[in-house]
Amino acid sequence: MRTGTLYGVGLGPGDPELITLKAARLIAAAGVVAYPALAGGASFARSIAADLIGPAAQEIVMEVPMALERAPAQAVYDAGAARIAGHLQQGRDVVCLCEGDPLFYGSFMYLFARLSGRFALEVVPGVTSVSACAARAGVALVARNDRFAVLPGPLPEEELSAGIARAESVAIMKVGRHLGKIRRVIAALGLEHRAVYVERAGLAEEVIVPLAEAPEVAPYFSMILVTKGTDPWL
Amino acid sequence: MRTGTLYGVGLGPGDPELITLKAARLIAAAGVVAYPALAGGASFARSIAADLIGPAAQEIVMEVPMALERAPAQAVYDAGAARIAGHLQQGRDVVCLCEGDPLFYGSFMYLFARLSGRFALEVVPGVTSVSACAARAGVALVARNDRFAVLPGPLPEEELSAGIARAESVAIMKVGRHLGKIRRVIAALGLEHRAVYVERAGLAEEVIVPLAEAPEVAPYFSMILVTKGTDPWL
Repeated sequence: MRTGTLYGVGLGPGDPELITLKAARLIAAAGVVAYPALAGGASFARSIAADLIGPAAQEIVMEVPMALERAPAQAVYDAGAARIAGHLQQGRDVVCLCEGDPLFYGSFMYLFARLSGRFALEVVPGVTSVSACAARAGVALVARNDRFAVLPGPLPEEELSAGIARAESVAIMKVGRHLGKIRRVIAALGLEHRAVYVERAGLAEEVIVPLAEAPEVAPYFSMILVTKGTDPWL
Repeated sequence: MRTGTLYGVGLGPGDPELITLKAARLIAAAGVVAYPALAGGASFARSIAADLIGPAAQEIVMEVPMALERAPAQAVYDAGAARIAGHLQQGRDVVCLCEGDPLFYGSFMYLFARLSGRFALEVVPGVTSVSACAARAGVALVARNDRFAVLPGPLPEEELSAGIARAESVAIMKVGRHLGKIRRVIAALGLEHRAVYVERAGLAEEVIVPLAEAPEVAPYFSMILVTKGTDPWL
C-alpha cells in the first residue's frame, strides 16, 4: 500500500488572498488538515485557510501550551505527529497549515523533524510576515549588495546592536515585551528615524507608525523594520 | 479625474502556482501590465505570469541592459516610469510584475522610488527565492531566537565570513562567479557540511546538492543555504 504525502503549506501572513495558488489547491482538495492552535484558543492558521477547507475534511488540532518548559509542547507535537503518521500510513495525504512560511520561524519544523525521512514530504513556501510588513509599510528592504538580517527581539542587547550594525536592513521579529530594549538599541545606533513599527500587517487591526510613536505595549507578533536607506534611483 | 493605482505584484520564485491569489486576481484583471526584461532577451517575470495576462492587456516592457554603468538602466527605468505615469494619469491602473517579492532585491524599487508619493501605490508581497530554496532543499531555516542573514555573494570575503559567523542560518544570494570565494569562506568556518547549493528551485532545471558537489560554474541566480542546525525537537 502506498503511504500518503505530508504537505507543509505556507499560508502567508494572514490575509487569505496572500495564500498561493498551490496552497489553495492543496487545502481545497485535502481530506485531512492539521494545524497548531493556542491551547484553549483559536488557530490563526486555520482562520486564514477557513474558506478553503472542505466540509468533509478531517481536522487534526495540535493545541500548543504557552509554557516556558519544552516538555508539554514536545508532547503535543509527538502526539500530533503520531496522528498524522497514522493517516499517512493509511495512504491518506495530510495538509499541515502553517502561518507565513513553514520553514521560517514556523512550528511546522517540529513536525518536519519528526516525520521527514519516514514519509514523502513536500513544503510549499509562503509569503513571510517580513515581506508583508515591508509591503504595507512601503519600505524598500534590500537591493543589489545590501545585507539583510532578521533578528528575534528576545536576543540580548549587544547581540541586537551588533546585528543591526552589520546590515543595511533589519527586521526585528517577536517584539512584544522587548520593545523598550529594542528601542534603546536602535536609538543608541542613531537609527530611530529609520525604524518603522508594524503590528498585524494587512489585517483590519493593522498599526504602522514610526518607531518613536510605537505603542507602549506591543503584541508578540509585532515587528520593527530598520532600513538604512538603499539607493533606489539605481 | 481619478488617477490610477500602481500595483507592484510579487510573482514568487518562478513556479506559476506560487503566485498568490491576490496577485493572480490583479494580473488577470489588469488593463496594463509592466515588467522588466533583459535587453534583447526574455522576461522571466512575464513568463511566470503568462497564463494570467489577458489578451487585451497593454504591455510595458522595460528592457534593462546588463551593464556595470548605472546610467543606461536608469534611463530605462526613467522611461518606464514615465510611460506608467501616463497610464496612471489617465485613470488606468498598472500592474507591475515582479519576480519573487517586490521589495526584496527586486527591480520594482526603482519604479517605487520614481512613482511613490505621486500616485496611489500598493505592493503585493510574494514568496521569496529564499523560502523556495529552503522548501525544495528541505532545510529548516530558523526557529525560536535564531538569527537569519541574507548576504549577496559579491560581498568581500571578510564581510561574508563575519556575516555567516553571526547568524544561525544564512542565505547567500547571487552566487554566480563568486562560488569559489564563497566556498573558501564557508570551508574556513568549518561549515561546508552544513551548506547546500540550490539552482532554479522548483523549476524543471533545478539543481540541489551539498556545496561540496556544486558545479564549477554557477548561474547568477543560484543560492547557498548554510544552516548551523536549529533544535527542531522543540
